[in-house]
Amino acid sequence: MTAGGFLDDFATLSTFGATERGGVHREAASAADEAQRNWFARRLGDLGFTVRYDRVGNQFGLRETVPDAPYVLVGSHLDSQPYGGRYDGAYGVLAAAHAVHRAAGTDGLRYNLAVVNWFNEEGSRFTPSMFGSAVFTGALDLHAALDTRDPAGVRVGDRLEAMGHIGTDAPELAGVAAYAEIHIEQGRVLEETGTAIGLVVDTWAARKYDLRVLGDQSHTGPTPMADRQDALLGAAHLVVTARELSDELSTPETPLHTSVSRMAVEPNSPVTVAREVTLNLDLRSPDEDLLARADAVLHERIPAIERAARVGVEVAGSHRWGVRPFPAAGVELARRAADDLGLSHRPVSTVAGHDSVNLNGHVPTVMLFVPSVAGISHNEGELTHDDDALAGVELLTAVVRRLAAGEPAG
Amino acid sequence: MTAGGFLDDFATLSTFGATERGGVHREAASAADEAQRNWFARRLGDLGFTVRYDRVGNQFGLRETVPDAPYVLVGSHLDSQPYGGRYDGAYGVLAAAHAVHRAAGTDGLRYNLAVVNWFNEEGSRFTPSMFGSAVFTGALDLHAALDTRDPAGVRVGDRLEAMGHIGTDAPELAGVAAYAEIHIEQGRVLEETGTAIGLVVDTWAARKYDLRVLGDQSHTGPTPMADRQDALLGAAHLVVTARELSDELSTPETPLHTSVSRMAVEPNSPVTVAREVTLNLDLRSPDEDLLARADAVLHERIPAIERAARVGVEVAGSHRWGVRPFPAAGVELARRAADDLGLSHRPVSTVAGHDSVNLNGHVPTVMLFVPSVAGISHNEGELTHDDDALAGVELLTAVVRRLAAGEPAG
Repeated sequence: MTAGGFLDDFATLSTFGATERGGVHREAASAADEAQRNWFARRLGDLGFTVRYDRVGNQFGLRETVPDAPYVLVGSHLDSQPYGGRYDGAYGVLAAAHAVHRAAGTDGLRYNLAVVNWFNEEGSRFTPSMFGSAVFTGALDLHAALDTRDPAGVRVGDRLEAMGHIGTDAPELAGVAAYAEIHIEQGRVLEETGTAIGLVVDTWAARKYDLRVLGDQSHTGPTPMADRQDALLGAAHLVVTARELSDELSTPETPLHTSVSRMAVEPNSPVTVAREVTLNLDLRSPDEDLLARADAVLHERIPAIERAARVGVEVAGSHRWGVRPFPAAGVELARRAADDLGLSHRPVSTVAGHDSVNLNGHVPTVMLFVPSVAGISHNEGELTHDDDALAGVELLTAVVRRLAAGEPAG
Repeated sequence: MTAGGFLDDFATLSTFGATERGGVHREAASAADEAQRNWFARRLGDLGFTVRYDRVGNQFGLRETVPDAPYVLVGSHLDSQPYGGRYDGAYGVLAAAHAVHRAAGTDGLRYNLAVVNWFNEEGSRFTPSMFGSAVFTGALDLHAALDTRDPAGVRVGDRLEAMGHIGTDAPELAGVAAYAEIHIEQGRVLEETGTAIGLVVDTWAARKYDLRVLGDQSHTGPTPMADRQDALLGAAHLVVTARELSDELSTPETPLHTSVSRMAVEPNSPVTVAREVTLNLDLRSPDEDLLARADAVLHERIPAIERAARVGVEVAGSHRWGVRPFPAAGVELARRAADDLGLSHRPVSTVAGHDSVNLNGHVPTVMLFVPSVAGISHNEGELTHDDDALAGVELLTAVVRRLAAGEPAG
């Protein structure tokens, strides 16, 4: 593998689930995902990796040079959003394979090396997102994960067995010395500041809700407006309210990002007022106090929405996390590596979740970003320039070498 | 068949697709609809009807006593909304069977008699609604109808063939002398005024739109709020705007009913801003000028919605109808029949569409309502009291006798 080899491999990888508009459509365990995973396994095998799977379909490529030593684990995910971009996740997995392959020849390593392709990071087909890494770290129960079904009723465990991508002899968390991941930024900071590398110092705080709006069915024609209990009207007010929270509470220094992106309407008939709507609602901010205020304002506004649409709004589920720093030692290790290579860098936050967010806290974790053109992401138009992509592979290689040599990262 | 027989038959009919909460769940050509259609065919056969199907699955029961004469056709539909009520449609079909069976013994009839169970009136599984009667009157192309598919891809023509409910020897429009239909009111006028029978004099005007909101996918996390082109936010503003139109423009004398009840979100992922949302939006009023004003205000507000959500809003399809009267002669015929039976009555409008709305204009058409408790409809709690249901069967029998005797209805 060479720098040129990376781009060739990436071009091949981008053919799996390729869309007409330059993106990829390969949700977890889809036929396209299965095909790319099999291709990746063959490519790893050709390069001298030993391929292994764990019980939730995480795919590992091992390079062992130090008998019985723990692993420096490096990876990301190959699955994509529906009609997503080529780079999100896939760039990081392939960069990891090339970085590990190059670092594996280095003298004096204290640790073994492993690449990982985490199963179902995107969560669009099987919820939640960051699925495989959550099972790996114990945040998600294995059996619950295997019993998860997609909207068509397909069970994770059944699909993984049919693919032959379940195993029991892969590395486990206890055998991991450190984790590193590189990803596209999915934002505009690096591009706008002309910076080659983002050193991820923390994760924004988030509060995520699964909401259920309960109305009652009625005929959309004759039913008097005052009698309607319209769950879709209630849901629409929640979508608009989420946006208003951002408009009202964000400041240039402390943004609040809000979204509703998934909705299911019952019975979803053209002539029947909706009895029930389920939707997600997310709040994210780098400022935990602002997030708490947004949460309070959201809850203050729900009763008025309930009255306006004559519905009930229930929080069917929620989870949250605070601002979570990555280890300063790992940021410093990556900074030194970037300086050695002459790559410009700056500290950045990640707003999106990544598998590294699951690993962080369990093992020393280093998270790196490369620029995304116009910050476009979860979109077929996602683009990272080749030079930026290759610079990231160089840096990741250097970081892996340092980690494997025992340089502290947390 | 006797009055008691009607209630027994209705109890049997209500077992098909019965739900735990007292309703029925039997969308067009579902297993439950197939079962009830087969039951109805056997019941008609036992009573001496000849059962026939036309090319779009409309189900007929013929009672011929006048060779080569046209038919007085009487019917409604057996299919239901998802988790709908027992009475909507099914009451009218069974009332028609009993009325025709009783009227068929009358001396001096000029016309033959036929019962009809129109295919797919509800339109929740296969759009549009009032499907079978629209093909019968030529408003909907037969081949387009047969090629219609449900959200799972099932084709109407394939399902009807599998059910064995397609034929070529059923009555056609040219052979129909008059049409009569009885239905639950789906409103509260009859109940609140203590009236037994609604004589339907006209249909409210309506404008119906299929809207498409076009945004662009992006990540719900890091994407700056100002960069988002959120199709779901645009759709939510349309839902809220529809309700505002009713709140602002309705008066007690001239109501405006508005609704959005169906929505499809793409890609409907928890972490991707929606690129496209399709939805229906309906406006209905007894006042055509008010409806035109509502239409104008809706279109005036769309550009602001497009700016607020950074989306495009397209009208992908629309149809409309004005206030359409039923023939005065038919209303008068039904009024005389009700007076003879000592049944209280009053003129009413229908807001909902019915198969009779398709027949009206082609043949003399009589439309009758019986009371609905609290106006509840498209809901498992739909209820018409037995006495009211039986009074309706009595009246329908008298109306059929008058029509078959050649009394003018239009």
